[in-house]
Amino acid sequence: MTGFPPLEFEARVTRAQQRMQNAGLAALLLTTEPELRYFTGYLTRFWESPTRPWFLIVPASGKPVAVIPSIGAALMAQTWIDDIRTWSAPDLTDDGVTLLADALTELTPDGAAIGCPDGHETHVRMPLADFTRLRDLIAARRITGDHGILRALRMVKSELEVAKIRTACQIATRAFARVPEIASAGTPLDQVFRRFQILCLEEGADWVPYLAGGAEQGGYTDVISPATQTPLEPGDVLMLDTGLVRDGYFCDYDRNWSVGPASAAVRTAHAQLIEASDAAFEQARPGATAAQLFHTMNAILTDGSTGTDAGRLGHGLGMSLTEWPSLIPDDHTELQPGMVLTLEPGIAVNGKILVHEENILITDGAPEFLSPRLGPELPTL
Amino acid sequence: MTGFPPLEFEARVTRAQQRMQNAGLAALLLTTEPELRYFTGYLTRFWESPTRPWFLIVPASGKPVAVIPSIGAALMAQTWIDDIRTWSAPDLTDDGVTLLADALTELTPDGAAIGCPDGHETHVRMPLADFTRLRDLIAARRITGDHGILRALRMVKSELEVAKIRTACQIATRAFARVPEIASAGTPLDQVFRRFQILCLEEGADWVPYLAGGAEQGGYTDVISPATQTPLEPGDVLMLDTGLVRDGYFCDYDRNWSVGPASAAVRTAHAQLIEASDAAFEQARPGATAAQLFHTMNAILTDGSTGTDAGRLGHGLGMSLTEWPSLIPDDHTELQPGMVLTLEPGIAVNGKILVHEENILITDGAPEFLSPRLGPELPTL
Repeated sequence: MTGFPPLEFEARVTRAQQRMQNAGLAALLLTTEPELRYFTGYLTRFWESPTRPWFLIVPASGKPVAVIPSIGAALMAQTWIDDIRTWSAPDLTDDGVTLLADALTELTPDGAAIGCPDGHETHVRMPLADFTRLRDLIAARRITGDHGILRALRMVKSELEVAKIRTACQIATRAFARVPEIASAGTPLDQVFRRFQILCLEEGADWVPYLAGGAEQGGYTDVISPATQTPLEPGDVLMLDTGLVRDGYFCDYDRNWSVGPASAAVRTAHAQLIEASDAAFEQARPGATAAQLFHTMNAILTDGSTGTDAGRLGHGLGMSLTEWPSLIPDDHTELQPGMVLTLEPGIAVNGKILVHEENILITDGAPEFLSPRLGPELPTL
Repeated sequence: MTGFPPLEFEARVTRAQQRMQNAGLAALLLTTEPELRYFTGYLTRFWESPTRPWFLIVPASGKPVAVIPSIGAALMAQTWIDDIRTWSAPDLTDDGVTLLADALTELTPDGAAIGCPDGHETHVRMPLADFTRLRDLIAARRITGDHGILRALRMVKSELEVAKIRTACQIATRAFARVPEIASAGTPLDQVFRRFQILCLEEGADWVPYLAGGAEQGGYTDVISPATQTPLEPGDVLMLDTGLVRDGYFCDYDRNWSVGPASAAVRTAHAQLIEASDAAFEQARPGATAAQLFHTMNAILTDGSTGTDAGRLGHGLGMSLTEWPSLIPDDHTELQPGMVLTLEPGIAVNGKILVHEENILITDGAPEFLSPRLGPELPTL
């Protein structure tokens, strides 16, 4: 099945409206892709175009109201949303702002607080000048933060959401298993990247929004650079880290391979990474915190010294490649059943780094690997 | 060659600083992927992660200053930028905001106006609460709009940029030529989408950020929906519209195929689309306006009635899938040599729509097709 039944969205809206009531919010105003999709199911790659703003209002009661460019009307009409208000975008003098202001005025009382996600990992996806104008047009109402409502809701996945993430992880598992078909000494790294994306598509990815990696002697320098044309050489460690999408949900994990035999230092470092993610996995139960998982991994990785520059050792995962919480010392978010996390330890070795990443599900009891749990041995190409 | 020589970025910065002086701006503050990359060459798919904000300051003179998460330091150090200030992100109490405020305070005088892109097709990619805090921290300075500087600069491509767009278009040309290998009656549309992305990668795309399309009897209902699992049937018109990336630059054009013989109405409609894009192409010279190209196409497409809901019949193209200007009645932007445009006519036929898209370069004289000019005949699968 693609998408979700209306019941899924009704439950999300109900949970949001309960929290809105507690926070004194008369509506939520949403502008980004995952925010709109979370409450509507509206799934399109058209967000790649930065031209048009898209708006969704979640009122205090009743269904959300879409205020969107007319080019999206047919697709939005296929979702469970009924109230779809459109304008012909782009409109250089009034790109949906009056239409949005009118809808907010209709749906909320004078003096209302309207919550717009304003915290970490969010932004307002509309032109700054239009946002300022919107505030003026609805001056009898206040746009405030959303009190973390979107974060709280999206951080805990439903069973149907978990099933989609599991499927995405399984697709990546099959693609990773085929890497020996496409990469060996002599293969330029950019070709490895292209061919690995092909494997992801062949194995069922709808698209591949994210692929990073590296390949250098005994590790890599960073993990976010695009691929060079340098051929793989014996002694290189190849890492591929993919965020592929199936039916709107991501996986996000990586694998490492040694091109030819690995040095003892590299083998030891890889085993330490596995030891770290295994230790965090064992700890990942309701009540443990994101920070505790960080410290558990960090103690294994650094012997007290600094690890890598990544800044965090894992994060949430779902409709976006990265989500809350962050496995960092300052994030004391308690784990809850339904959270999907990445465990992403990194380690320094001889001036290079190695990283490893798994995807896990928090349950009532022991957690579950969504990516297949890796052993300590570094595979060889 | 990948990327650009430093001279390219120096020229961009010089042009920006001239315009900043005229506009009375002491600095530009930039937060989005194409804005940062335009002045630095910083290319990474890591922007897919919404977690971390990234900042670039273009001061009144001298090189831009990067204020970025430490995870990006190694890659940024490979660009021509020298002044790279980092923090360990995510930081839940101060996610780069103080560091950014300090840099702005150091680089601009009291009372300065700092320009942040605020118009169409832009947004501020940082949390709203952090943006508010930034404004408070630099209260002796004002954050204003950028007076359209980014728009004006990015809209006119250098020869080196055009070469990259041309390469992306050629990759898509080769992929489109191979569509008969992957699509015929009986192939589910989602498989066509996967296989077409594979073709793009095989032909040299670095990644495929955008693919849309449709396939229904005698046309399609909209052009932004994800693919269904419905198999192609005789009488369907299949459309594939790709924005693939090579070395950071997009193509954005589409092709149509009839599955088996097309009806006379469909063949006529397709010929009208070609007539429309050809007519706009003939007109696309310096001095003509975006609006004029719209009207030229619209007159051929609609016989005075309404065409489709797309809202515009083409747009700019480059580092983003869609850029300024818009081929709409209200956009009176004059064409200039170096602009790269899509011509994207759409037509209604028997309750469905057909769309066609080409990519062209504006020159001193006659324009140039970057996508291969199509004839009026609709090819058959």
